[in-house]
Amino acid sequence: MTDVFDHPWLGALFGDPEVSALWSAETQLEHYRVFEAALATALEACGRIPPGRGRMAADAIERAELDIATLSLATARDGLPVPEFVRQLRMAAKQNEAAIHTGATSQDVLDTALALTLRDVSGVLIDRLQVLDASLSKLIAKQGSNVLIGRTRMQAALPITVSTRLESWRQPLKDHVTALEALRPRIERLQLGGAVGTRDGFGAEAERIASHMAATLDLAAEPVWHTDRIAVAEYAGRLSLVSGSLGKLGQDIALMAQQGIDEIVLQGGGGSSAMPHKSNPVLAELLVTLARFNATQIAGLHQSLIHEQERSGAAWMLEWMILPQMAVATARSLAAATALCSQIQRIGSKNTLK
Amino acid sequence: MTDVFDHPWLGALFGDPEVSALWSAETQLEHYRVFEAALATALEACGRIPPGRGRMAADAIERAELDIATLSLATARDGLPVPEFVRQLRMAAKQNEAAIHTGATSQDVLDTALALTLRDVSGVLIDRLQVLDASLSKLIAKQGSNVLIGRTRMQAALPITVSTRLESWRQPLKDHVTALEALRPRIERLQLGGAVGTRDGFGAEAERIASHMAATLDLAAEPVWHTDRIAVAEYAGRLSLVSGSLGKLGQDIALMAQQGIDEIVLQGGGGSSAMPHKSNPVLAELLVTLARFNATQIAGLHQSLIHEQERSGAAWMLEWMILPQMAVATARSLAAATALCSQIQRIGSKNTLK
Amino acid sequence: MTDVFDHPWLGALFGDPEVSALWSAETQLEHYRVFEAALATALEACGRIPPGRGRMAADAIERAELDIATLSLATARDGLPVPEFVRQLRMAAKQNEAAIHTGATSQDVLDTALALTLRDVSGVLIDRLQVLDASLSKLIAKQGSNVLIGRTRMQAALPITVSTRLESWRQPLKDHVTALEALRPRIERLQLGGAVGTRDGFGAEAERIASHMAATLDLAAEPVWHTDRIAVAEYAGRLSLVSGSLGKLGQDIALMAQQGIDEIVLQGGGGSSAMPHKSNPVLAELLVTLARFNATQIAGLHQSLIHEQERSGAAWMLEWMILPQMAVATARSLAAATALCSQIQRIGSKNTLK
Amino acid sequence: MTDVFDHPWLGALFGDPEVSALWSAETQLEHYRVFEAALATALEACGRIPPGRGRMAADAIERAELDIATLSLATARDGLPVPEFVRQLRMAAKQNEAAIHTGATSQDVLDTALALTLRDVSGVLIDRLQVLDASLSKLIAKQGSNVLIGRTRMQAALPITVSTRLESWRQPLKDHVTALEALRPRIERLQLGGAVGTRDGFGAEAERIASHMAATLDLAAEPVWHTDRIAVAEYAGRLSLVSGSLGKLGQDIALMAQQGIDEIVLQGGGGSSAMPHKSNPVLAELLVTLARFNATQIAGLHQSLIHEQERSGAAWMLEWMILPQMAVATARSLAAATALCSQIQRIGSKNTLK
Repeated sequence: MTDVFDHPWLGALFGDPEVSALWSAETQLEHYRVFEAALATALEACGRIPPGRGRMAADAIERAELDIATLSLATARDGLPVPEFVRQLRMAAKQNEAAIHTGATSQDVLDTALALTLRDVSGVLIDRLQVLDASLSKLIAKQGSNVLIGRTRMQAALPITVSTRLESWRQPLKDHVTALEALRPRIERLQLGGAVGTRDGFGAEAERIASHMAATLDLAAEPVWHTDRIAVAEYAGRLSLVSGSLGKLGQDIALMAQQGIDEIVLQGGGGSSAMPHKSNPVLAELLVTLARFNATQIAGLHQSLIHEQERSGAAWMLEWMILPQMAVATARSLAAATALCSQIQRIGSKNTLK
Repeated sequence: MTDVFDHPWLGALFGDPEVSALWSAETQLEHYRVFEAALATALEACGRIPPGRGRMAADAIERAELDIATLSLATARDGLPVPEFVRQLRMAAKQNEAAIHTGATSQDVLDTALALTLRDVSGVLIDRLQVLDASLSKLIAKQGSNVLIGRTRMQAALPITVSTRLESWRQPLKDHVTALEALRPRIERLQLGGAVGTRDGFGAEAERIASHMAATLDLAAEPVWHTDRIAVAEYAGRLSLVSGSLGKLGQDIALMAQQGIDEIVLQGGGGSSAMPHKSNPVLAELLVTLARFNATQIAGLHQSLIHEQERSGAAWMLEWMILPQMAVATARSLAAATALCSQIQRIGSKNTLK
Repeated sequence: MTDVFDHPWLGALFGDPEVSALWSAETQLEHYRVFEAALATALEACGRIPPGRGRMAADAIERAELDIATLSLATARDGLPVPEFVRQLRMAAKQNEAAIHTGATSQDVLDTALALTLRDVSGVLIDRLQVLDASLSKLIAKQGSNVLIGRTRMQAALPITVSTRLESWRQPLKDHVTALEALRPRIERLQLGGAVGTRDGFGAEAERIASHMAATLDLAAEPVWHTDRIAVAEYAGRLSLVSGSLGKLGQDIALMAQQGIDEIVLQGGGGSSAMPHKSNPVLAELLVTLARFNATQIAGLHQSLIHEQERSGAAWMLEWMILPQMAVATARSLAAATALCSQIQRIGSKNTLK
Repeated sequence: MTDVFDHPWLGALFGDPEVSALWSAETQLEHYRVFEAALATALEACGRIPPGRGRMAADAIERAELDIATLSLATARDGLPVPEFVRQLRMAAKQNEAAIHTGATSQDVLDTALALTLRDVSGVLIDRLQVLDASLSKLIAKQGSNVLIGRTRMQAALPITVSTRLESWRQPLKDHVTALEALRPRIERLQLGGAVGTRDGFGAEAERIASHMAATLDLAAEPVWHTDRIAVAEYAGRLSLVSGSLGKLGQDIALMAQQGIDEIVLQGGGGSSAMPHKSNPVLAELLVTLARFNATQIAGLHQSLIHEQERSGAAWMLEWMILPQMAVATARSLAAATALCSQIQRIGSKNTLK
């Protein structure tokens, strides 16, 4: 039960296979290879290694069979997998080993992999925000003229149309799409700095190598961001803002579903082991849970902004622990919100608003 | 000591009089008056009340002597000051009382006041970000070619120039200015919704009244955002991102100032009651403290995104408790960072980087 | 509005004058004097200064008129008030200045003052927990046999008696009293360590001086705890556990007060500026807000457990920013819960449970 | 990379197989069976079902082959696995199905399983605290008389012995052991409440059934704690207090290991992909990371104290997401701290303290 996102049965409730796959060990390793291959190719293209060697190294990188058991042992010692990963690639590349990782450092590999991962995460989230928005639009089209009691401070205020409440759920969705798009250039950046972030290991060709790699990877070439974690925390902030919006939607639905309020009818609610008559608004509750989970986590990523000197092991590792979970929780909350909308059979009542 | 920002002696360390003043009771009350006066004027301009009455009511609003003791008693009962504030204004406006608050609700007053406050806060922060950026530029111009040991994972790595490290401190500052400017249209918005956020209390003139008020207050007229707290949490996120950047700067300086490392000489450090020889890097530590404070607080504002139904008293009050403190902490961290830069007498050493 | 606890009108809602007074600048200063007087007396009693000098110094400490403006300026420079406070006391003590602060350090003063403050806070909280428990008992006696619908996952489950729910509110209260009492010996401890926590500045008399001071102040003499902040975070944890219990009570009442549910009738609810018919469950909402506030803050005090070396300025200052607010919020939540209980006119209905 | 604790290579750094196993799906399922078997036996012993039936049902519970795929599908629908788990057990028990789960509810199963898990976690943590304490004692015995510079506010203060600093690391360990033991009776409690926590489903035999089950499971029989989550948050608080103590130890070691400070020599430090000469204090950094991780998480468990009515799906699910991770992080931090101590070759220097 350590990881509810990937668990034999809780995974069906909390998990999001599509976004989890983007963070899987396999995908990460693939991103590491892609980084090293792009570097090898760029080193050759910029004349840092003899013609042909970069291409051959890149081939070796792609084909190398990795010894994961040794990678694991080395990670325990080194605090990250890259030194051993590079050693194995160099073994595989044999006489072309000079094309591998030369001038780069571990953080370049892991942070560039992060950029590649977040690009894919953004794609999924934007799609799902639009799907949810369309679901809500459809609901509004069908039932928006129904009436319910507007409530403020948990007290009955005045009647409103269903569309008033549903539009309040929709309102932030477009902003989230805009914001995720606006974040793209700040997130989808190559990290290439070398030992202390100065690119000195690449000599005079540093900027050309960065540009070449960036073009290969379809990332921005600038700036070096190894110690500037603002964009990472900003991205995490957006994840939590998205799940927070959906937490409101979930809380509203859970409140509407109370007997005595009866402003929504859901099909497919959760069963109870003690009370067969119950139909629990499980997905609505889940949205609240995921929102409060992300709201908790965001504090950790802001703590890790204090990324001292040219690389903070402690602050950086904290990102690894938290950010992937936030991404999966957010993706799940979007899927759950859409599923919840499809469970709505009736919302509000047919009375007309005077 | 409840409030370190406004305290007979701790206030000199933690406080920021300029930004605290923007959140003072007096300023808030002034914003409430400005809202109500703008509404009275708009009601008249749009024909909701007879000609002249809005202008007279606005005069009464501006001149009304408020009974704060009663306001306080009423706040304890009502959970906010607006109902009693409006009652007192109506008493003062006498026959023009229909021009006061008609169609509006408490949240309209408080949230619009918040927009006015945050506009002013943004102005201060942007100015200070630019001042700090200029200070760092000057330091780079003077001492940027000095050398220090780049450190990764708290271990000596390779020598770098002072400008490498100082540019890493500068890098996020421009992004923060850009981001604060980009947030302006999302923050500087009129809130006008009435009882349940539908503007129904203004009849057919609702949009004209909103536009008139927005023009008067120089705010955007749309959308109604009473339950959409995304922009508020986003703004708070930016506050914490700013103080987080400065936390890194402070942590770096505290580490550089260690005896044995000796990569920075500060004047004006703090004295000790037990060890007169000490010179403590108080402002550097303060930057770390303020960063961790804001990183803690941001979680609370993300929790309050779960703003149920048409108004959540519980979620909304949580914003009141947290956001003003974050703004003051951020402003203070900017002032402290600039002061700290001016304390730097030497940074790095004159050795040249090979 | 920076400090909702001490504010011309919000203070009536959020504030707690009794517990705020325990954290006031005046009270803190008084604690500093008490510490220094106890030390002066102990130094004399243990022969570290000539007979009579300690007593005379203690008199001077009690009577010294302090220059707060200078204390404030010095705090900005030193990061804490103690060096200047000691300087002023020494001026006042004239030829007896050797009896003042000798062997001690700033943290000894501030942490001992904290112990004295928390002792008083515990007293207030324990009293209020018992008052609330008695209020709930009385409600149970009067209305406990009434019936309401037990709800799980926000859905109607089975009928329960009112006493079932009210006993669930009472259940943690006794545990909190027990826990606060159990914390007393861990909190009510003298801090006396000197420059680096070794008590070396007191020579061979160190333990005798500590015992003498501890007896005077009615605190435990051991251990030195300047870097061991576990008890501080533990205390803060208890504060948040208390307000968390009351947050549940508040949330339950807010849910019961919904029209359509109607399981509670409160008198004295909050008025609305837009809807005169409303009676908002303001205190119930406030309990939720205060619980979520403290739940947010506790993370900061756990961050400050990383109190490096022999004194961390950064981690320690974070305690100053957070702990007093948590204490006041908790005290207020207890007062508000009791007030809320007294507003209950009816709870549940007279039907009998089959 | 979603779960760093159980990951092909990051698991070797962050993971703790022993404590992860306590939270595994298999162990949880075993606890569920143990609960249901204890209930079946108790129902028989108390005459709620015919003689022999409870024993036979218990056998069936132990032997039942569970269909995990269906369990997973049902969890997605019901929000928890218990209804389907019970259905499968009843199928397996055939004519004895009345002995299965009768009178109980899902929360009884999951919360009792939690109590059983935390009992085992406490055992591991207490053992490891004692092992670490012994390691530190040994270090003190060997190198305690060495000298290093005491540092306050990150500045050199006065020389101290190594034992002064190491005793400051040891000091909280004994308190943690005491506190974990003191928590046992508050954590190791049967949860048995039935649908709404009243034990009404067990009729007049309720207390006898609870006692019987408690005796079987070696747990306390009282009180019903389904909505009183104080002990859960308290336990989580202790987890974070433990990792926080070790975060200080780790931060101190990382600071001592800086070149220029050189107060500690570690063997087996982490390698770098760019700088083969480096030896990074990976475990010291990891302790800081784990401390800040838990300090972040604790806020979430305090948020979930607001556990409304007779069962809050939203607040409860948040516990499932956070608590297991905290337990594993804490266990790992203890193991890492002990491993780090064994890496210490020299600490301080042989100079004697004058």
